[in-house]
Amino acid sequence: MFQLLKKEKNTKARLGIVTTAHGKIESPFFMPVGTNGSVKTLSCEDLREFDAQIMLSNTYHLFLRPGMDVIEKAGGLHKFISWDRPMLTDSGGYQVFSLTKFRKITDEGVEFRSHVDGSLCFFTPEEVMRIEHILGSDMIMPLDECAPYPCEYKEAKKSVERTTLWAKRSREYFLKNQMNQKQHLLGIIQGATFKDLREESARAILDVGFDGYAIGGVSVGEPVDLMFETLDWVEPLLPDDKPRYFMGIGYPDQIVKAVGDGIDMFDTCIPTRFGRNGTAFTSRGRVVVRNGEHAQDFGPIDDSCACVVCKRYSRSYIRHLTNMNEILGLKLISYHNVYFYVNLMRQIREAIKVDRYQEFKKDFLTKYGSSLT
Amino acid sequence: MFQLLKKEKNTKARLGIVTTAHGKIESPFFMPVGTNGSVKTLSCEDLREFDAQIMLSNTYHLFLRPGMDVIEKAGGLHKFISWDRPMLTDSGGYQVFSLTKFRKITDEGVEFRSHVDGSLCFFTPEEVMRIEHILGSDMIMPLDECAPYPCEYKEAKKSVERTTLWAKRSREYFLKNQMNQKQHLLGIIQGATFKDLREESARAILDVGFDGYAIGGVSVGEPVDLMFETLDWVEPLLPDDKPRYFMGIGYPDQIVKAVGDGIDMFDTCIPTRFGRNGTAFTSRGRVVVRNGEHAQDFGPIDDSCACVVCKRYSRSYIRHLTNMNEILGLKLISYHNVYFYVNLMRQIREAIKVDRYQEFKKDFLTKYGSSLT
Repeated sequence: MFQLLKKEKNTKARLGIVTTAHGKIESPFFMPVGTNGSVKTLSCEDLREFDAQIMLSNTYHLFLRPGMDVIEKAGGLHKFISWDRPMLTDSGGYQVFSLTKFRKITDEGVEFRSHVDGSLCFFTPEEVMRIEHILGSDMIMPLDECAPYPCEYKEAKKSVERTTLWAKRSREYFLKNQMNQKQHLLGIIQGATFKDLREESARAILDVGFDGYAIGGVSVGEPVDLMFETLDWVEPLLPDDKPRYFMGIGYPDQIVKAVGDGIDMFDTCIPTRFGRNGTAFTSRGRVVVRNGEHAQDFGPIDDSCACVVCKRYSRSYIRHLTNMNEILGLKLISYHNVYFYVNLMRQIREAIKVDRYQEFKKDFLTKYGSSLT
Repeated sequence: MFQLLKKEKNTKARLGIVTTAHGKIESPFFMPVGTNGSVKTLSCEDLREFDAQIMLSNTYHLFLRPGMDVIEKAGGLHKFISWDRPMLTDSGGYQVFSLTKFRKITDEGVEFRSHVDGSLCFFTPEEVMRIEHILGSDMIMPLDECAPYPCEYKEAKKSVERTTLWAKRSREYFLKNQMNQKQHLLGIIQGATFKDLREESARAILDVGFDGYAIGGVSVGEPVDLMFETLDWVEPLLPDDKPRYFMGIGYPDQIVKAVGDGIDMFDTCIPTRFGRNGTAFTSRGRVVVRNGEHAQDFGPIDDSCACVVCKRYSRSYIRHLTNMNEILGLKLISYHNVYFYVNLMRQIREAIKVDRYQEFKKDFLTKYGSSLT
C-alpha cells in the first residue's frame, strides 16, 4: 500500500506513495473534508481543477443522512458523490463522543442518539466496519475512543484499552470479510496527553497491525505545544514503511511543522470553515477579506498564489460579495483556501525531494508569521 | 448595433445579432441576472462554461453597494466582476419604485431612502445615465416610471408621460456625453394594462429614438393573458431593425411563446431563485429536487440535458445536499437551471434558422406541460 520513496536529509520529513483502488497519492498529502459528501461550497470538478488527490468524508454524518440504504443503492460513496479519486472515511467515533450527553459507552460499543431525529443508534467496531465496507472508501478508520482534554489519567487509560480492544475486533472483521482486497484499514493511537499511555497505545496498535497509523485525540483543545509533544512521543515508535496520519491537524504552519516531524497525512475543515467566514489563508498569514479595509483593494487574495480565484478576482470584489452575503463570495474564498492547502503540500513534497525541507520550513514559517519553529 | 438576420416563416420569431463593445450576441437571447454583480451561486467561469453570451446587473444595488467610487476605481463593472462579455444594466427604476413607502416621485426624478442604511438618495434620468456611464455596461436602460398592477388609468397615463420626459432627458445626456461611442441605450415602453396608453408610449419612445426597445411594467402581478396581450398591442409598432426586450420575463414556456410573438431579449432571476429553493427546470416541467421522492432517484435532473450537473450528479445526491443545506446543492441546481435557459435559447435560434419555430414551440409547450399556446 505504501512505498517510502525517501527520507529527507536533515529532518524527519518523508516522501512516499500510497496506492489505493482509486489511484495513487503522493505523500505528504492533505485531505479536504467533505463531511456530508461535499467539501463545503466546492464541487468535485473544483477539486479536480487544482488536482486534489484525495478527499475525506464522515461516516457518522453519512450514516444518518442520506443513510446507508441510499449509498448502497447508489453503488457506494464514490458513485453517490461522483468522485473517482481516493477517499478516506473516519469511523464516526469522534463525532459520537462529542455527543457527550447523548451517548453511553461500554466495551461492546457506543449507544447514541442521532442529532437529526433523536433516534437510538448503536455503533460497535464491527458495525462501523460494515458501514465503511458499504461506503467503499479507500482508506478507513476503525471505531476508537477519543478522550477529551483535559482528562484524568484513569479515564485516558481506559480509553486506550478500549481503543485497543476495538482495534482488534475491527481488524478481525476487516480481514474476515475480505475488505483488505479493496480497502486499507488504519490504526488509531490514543492516550491523551500522557506519555506512557501514548507509548502503550502505539505498541498495542502496532501489535494488532494496520496499513497505516494515525495519531488520534489531538487538536481537542490541548495547547499546541502539547499537541506536538504528543507527536514527538509517538513518532519514533512508528515503522517507516506505513503512512502516518496526524488526525484533524491543522493550520498551515502546523502542517509544515508536523511534516518535518515525520507526518504524511493531514485533514482539517479549517480552509472551508474559515472560507465561509470570509477569512483567507495566504503565504503571509491570514487575511480577513470581508473587512472594510479591502473595499478598494484591487489586488488578489494572495499575490503569490496561482489559483483561478487569485488570477481572476480582486479582494475588493470578493469582499463586496461576502458583504452582500452572496454565496459566490464564500465559494471563492473556500476555493482559494483549499487550493492553498493542496498547493502547500506540493511545495512541501518538492522541498523534500531536493533535501531542502529545513530551509523551506524556516522560510514558510517566517513569511507566514508563525510562532512555531 | 442590431442586424436582423431573418424573420421566421410562420411566426413573428426573429434571428439577429447584437454587436457591442464586448462582443456579439446572437438573438433571441437570455440574460442571467447578477443583481449584485454575481449571478447567484455562479462564477463567471460557470457562465462561460455553458457559453452564456451576456449577463445583466442591477444599477440600484450596485449604486448602494459597493458604491460607484469602488466600481469607478476598479475600471468599470466588467473589470470589477471579471466578466469580459457583454453586459446590460437596468436603470434602478423598478427597484426604486418598489420602495413604495420610502420614495417620492416628481418630474425631476425620484427621491428614495436606501434599503441598506436609510440614507437619502436622488435618482434623476441624468444621474442614472451618469452611473451607467461609470458602470460601462454595453446596453443600458434609462430611468422610467413603472406603474403598479392594478393601477388607475390616470396614474398609468401620468407614468407614461413621465417616462417619455425622462426618456428624452436620458437620450440627451447619453448623446451629449458621447456615451454612444461604447454603449447602447434602449427605450422603455410603459402604459400598464391600457391599450391606448401602451400605443401612446410606444409612439412617444420611438419618436425619441433608441438603440432597442423594451416593454416594461410587465410581470408585475397582472394575469399572464394580459401580459401577452400587452405584447400583442406593442409589437406591431416596433421597428424590425432594433432588438426588442420583454423585461423580467419569464418562465421557460413564457419565453418560448414570447419569441414566437417577436421578442429578442429576456431576463429573469427565476432560474437562480428557484434553484436556491431546490426546484429545477426540465424539458418536462419543474422538478422539486429537494422532495423526498427523489431520495433514491439516481438519474439526472433532466435526462435530455447535457449540462455538467446532469452528466455527473444524480437527483439523489443533489436532493441530499439540499436536505443538508449544503451550498453545493443550491449551486448545482442553479447551474443546471441557468444552463437550461441558455440552452433553450440555442434551441430556439436553431428552430428559427430552419423555419420550424411553430413545431418547436408546440413540441416544447406540450412536453413541458404548459397551458400556453
